[in-house]
Amino acid sequence: MGRRFDTISFLSDLGVADESVGVVHAIVRDLAPHASVVDLTHHIDPYDVRGGSLALARAIGYVPSGVVLAAVDAGLQTGRSFVAIEVAGGEGVLVGPDNGVLAPAVAMAGGAERAVRLSNVEFHLATPGGALPVRDVLAPVAAHLCNGVDLDELGEAVDTDLLLPGVVPLPREAEGGGVAAEVLWVNRVGDCQLNIGLDDLGALGGALGTRLMVRAGEVTRVVERVEHSGHLGAGSIGLVVDPYGMLALALERRSAAEELQLGVSDAVVLTTLAEGDRGPGTTSQVRIGPAPSRPPR
Amino acid sequence: MGRRFDTISFLSDLGVADESVGVVHAIVRDLAPHASVVDLTHHIDPYDVRGGSLALARAIGYVPSGVVLAAVDAGLQTGRSFVAIEVAGGEGVLVGPDNGVLAPAVAMAGGAERAVRLSNVEFHLATPGGALPVRDVLAPVAAHLCNGVDLDELGEAVDTDLLLPGVVPLPREAEGGGVAAEVLWVNRVGDCQLNIGLDDLGALGGALGTRLMVRAGEVTRVVERVEHSGHLGAGSIGLVVDPYGMLALALERRSAAEELQLGVSDAVVLTTLAEGDRGPGTTSQVRIGPAPSRPPR
Amino acid sequence: MGRRFDTISFLSDLGVADESVGVVHAIVRDLAPHASVVDLTHHIDPYDVRGGSLALARAIGYVPSGVVLAAVDAGLQTGRSFVAIEVAGGEGVLVGPDNGVLAPAVAMAGGAERAVRLSNVEFHLATPGGALPVRDVLAPVAAHLCNGVDLDELGEAVDTDLLLPGVVPLPREAEGGGVAAEVLWVNRVGDCQLNIGLDDLGALGGALGTRLMVRAGEVTRVVERVEHSGHLGAGSIGLVVDPYGMLALALERRSAAEELQLGVSDAVVLTTLAEGDRGPGTTSQVRIGPAPSRPPR
Repeated sequence: MGRRFDTISFLSDLGVADESVGVVHAIVRDLAPHASVVDLTHHIDPYDVRGGSLALARAIGYVPSGVVLAAVDAGLQTGRSFVAIEVAGGEGVLVGPDNGVLAPAVAMAGGAERAVRLSNVEFHLATPGGALPVRDVLAPVAAHLCNGVDLDELGEAVDTDLLLPGVVPLPREAEGGGVAAEVLWVNRVGDCQLNIGLDDLGALGGALGTRLMVRAGEVTRVVERVEHSGHLGAGSIGLVVDPYGMLALALERRSAAEELQLGVSDAVVLTTLAEGDRGPGTTSQVRIGPAPSRPPR
Repeated sequence: MGRRFDTISFLSDLGVADESVGVVHAIVRDLAPHASVVDLTHHIDPYDVRGGSLALARAIGYVPSGVVLAAVDAGLQTGRSFVAIEVAGGEGVLVGPDNGVLAPAVAMAGGAERAVRLSNVEFHLATPGGALPVRDVLAPVAAHLCNGVDLDELGEAVDTDLLLPGVVPLPREAEGGGVAAEVLWVNRVGDCQLNIGLDDLGALGGALGTRLMVRAGEVTRVVERVEHSGHLGAGSIGLVVDPYGMLALALERRSAAEELQLGVSDAVVLTTLAEGDRGPGTTSQVRIGPAPSRPPR
Repeated sequence: MGRRFDTISFLSDLGVADESVGVVHAIVRDLAPHASVVDLTHHIDPYDVRGGSLALARAIGYVPSGVVLAAVDAGLQTGRSFVAIEVAGGEGVLVGPDNGVLAPAVAMAGGAERAVRLSNVEFHLATPGGALPVRDVLAPVAAHLCNGVDLDELGEAVDTDLLLPGVVPLPREAEGGGVAAEVLWVNRVGDCQLNIGLDDLGALGGALGTRLMVRAGEVTRVVERVEHSGHLGAGSIGLVVDPYGMLALALERRSAAEELQLGVSDAVVLTTLAEGDRGPGTTSQVRIGPAPSRPPR
């Protein structure tokens, strides 16, 4: 027997309107009663592999040693196989479909060290009808991993180089100058996370000043580089470093997504404004009254 | 003291917009700290006893030994009593209102062996106002059961034959031939589970070929018997055996409920098509291009 | 080391659409694996401090000894500090922003005995970008409290008299007679809890008979004092003592909020009707058929 885990961190696109997530908990409780299941979220849009992979990537730095179960687009009909991937010298095993949902988290955990296809039906549950892989394969396998079953027992080895990678778009120089980026995520209060990390700023950041112009579809607006949205005047749009180390568009207590009519995967272009330049053709909100006392950073 | 349980599987129509479900967890944690609560789902529609009973029936085969708490339409105003029902030689106790929500799960667990009305207020909580049975009666009783309190202590015995049964419609022969069925459940991706089980197919299935016609309200469409929706061409409607052993209408990555304008409790009629028969008056989608390479099963 | 807790009761406005709540669970599991997290609710509206404080107040009597974590409007941009407040001789510690969300629960638990500002970064997590206090401060502090870290270690003492109080509106005599009240909460089935407690009835209740008139905006309706909505005729509106000891407007299996077009914070005026008085200008629903057999209480 290998390592005995006691936590399963669980993310899915199953929703909670029915008992699907609860049945996974029940199966784990039955097969590995010592293990706890931490629900990351189950509200990934159905089939949204990219959205699921990004949520998992945001969380992975915080999950304890153990098993990660990511069931996004995990239907049998996709034709994808289901895999277990060992990372970090055996500190963690990620379980899910081989459709890219695990890839960014695996990369952040140091890369895949070992992987198997979950082909050994001895560790699966029999179904009373058609297959439901999250219930029949992923849940029992996660429980057996907690009980110390080794990857080798779960199925045949897979070349880790052949696992499907995740696809996250990179920011690039825009035609006519500036940075062409994309919205990765809109959070509960409407902040729009862009695909520009602090690391990217070395390459791109020379072009990003403290006053910028953002173009998003038909909307063009001035934005200010600030530490956080509390440093903004009412109605002003900020470009902040968000809690995940990415640039994000944010307003104070209002939704940047609504203000800029932005959704996930939408394109935005950021260009630096010179001092005093209000940007020809911009439709920035007029501020009445004194400027905010704290200077933008 | 009787058996000591350590799991409560909990299903309700309470929603999660407020703290009601959390308070049940808190009460259990306080009274029976060794017990874990597995949330099956709390998004049963308010008062939807049938929907709750079906969700519980889909889950019951997977819940561990212990207590099942089903609080659907559990208000005092219904006039129904609250009961605890022992099943499977004492392996499980189901707790809830005597309104039929427990009935299908009890049947699947082998039938009620013993039942009591939860009339002993010694095991209830006092309320600061009006009664809230899920909080004042069901939660503490579930916790006390985990602590080993025997059914006999919870209240007077109830004749198990007098417990309110669940009402699940049976499929029947349609006028003019075929099978008249009903939608039991629409899942997150729009598959429509019908009230036709694999067991029913012996009686009915002779009439169901591999190409069928489905009538649902004003809509008439051709459907194919396939193993799962991944075997369908784009836009084709499949009749599959779903993961619960029931027949279901499904499309590949699209909603059958939307395509057929179907909701829970809607009636459908299935009739077999002869080879080559496209069904007079059907409005099936025309497929352009080659047929799918995998033959329908 | 001080007291070792093993339960964190957790309420927030984070929603569950993303992994934010899950990450708090993961952090606690990592830092204090012996502790259990009880989710009270995470569906408080963003920034709704009053709504969060009321939900916490409804729950606080049921949460076990331990830590209470309330993350409502817990962004850094508010400029508020984060605090830990000890209550009940050390039986409980409430953790959250000093914005009033904890205040009613603290009062119900007997009042603040000791409080500190969470300024000791030794017990916080480093962020890869901007600050996310629920993740970087509140979650790890709650876990460390479970591990026995004393309040004194978490930061400098705060005068408990300077903690921001909660603001709950009091009922008052209406101009022209009767009681002017406010809707505190609308529950899942549409019952409207008013800000009139059983204790307030001593002062106000002399004015409240068993048949009353309620004015809510443009709507005026007759209401009956009953024990619970099951005692009402179909369509009749009841004034009940709800399960929290507050007066509430309720219908049988229908939404009083919809019937009276009421939402949270809306004003209502209750006046007593004399026997036989139908209330000039009222638009009460006409009942056809016999009166309900059970007399209103």
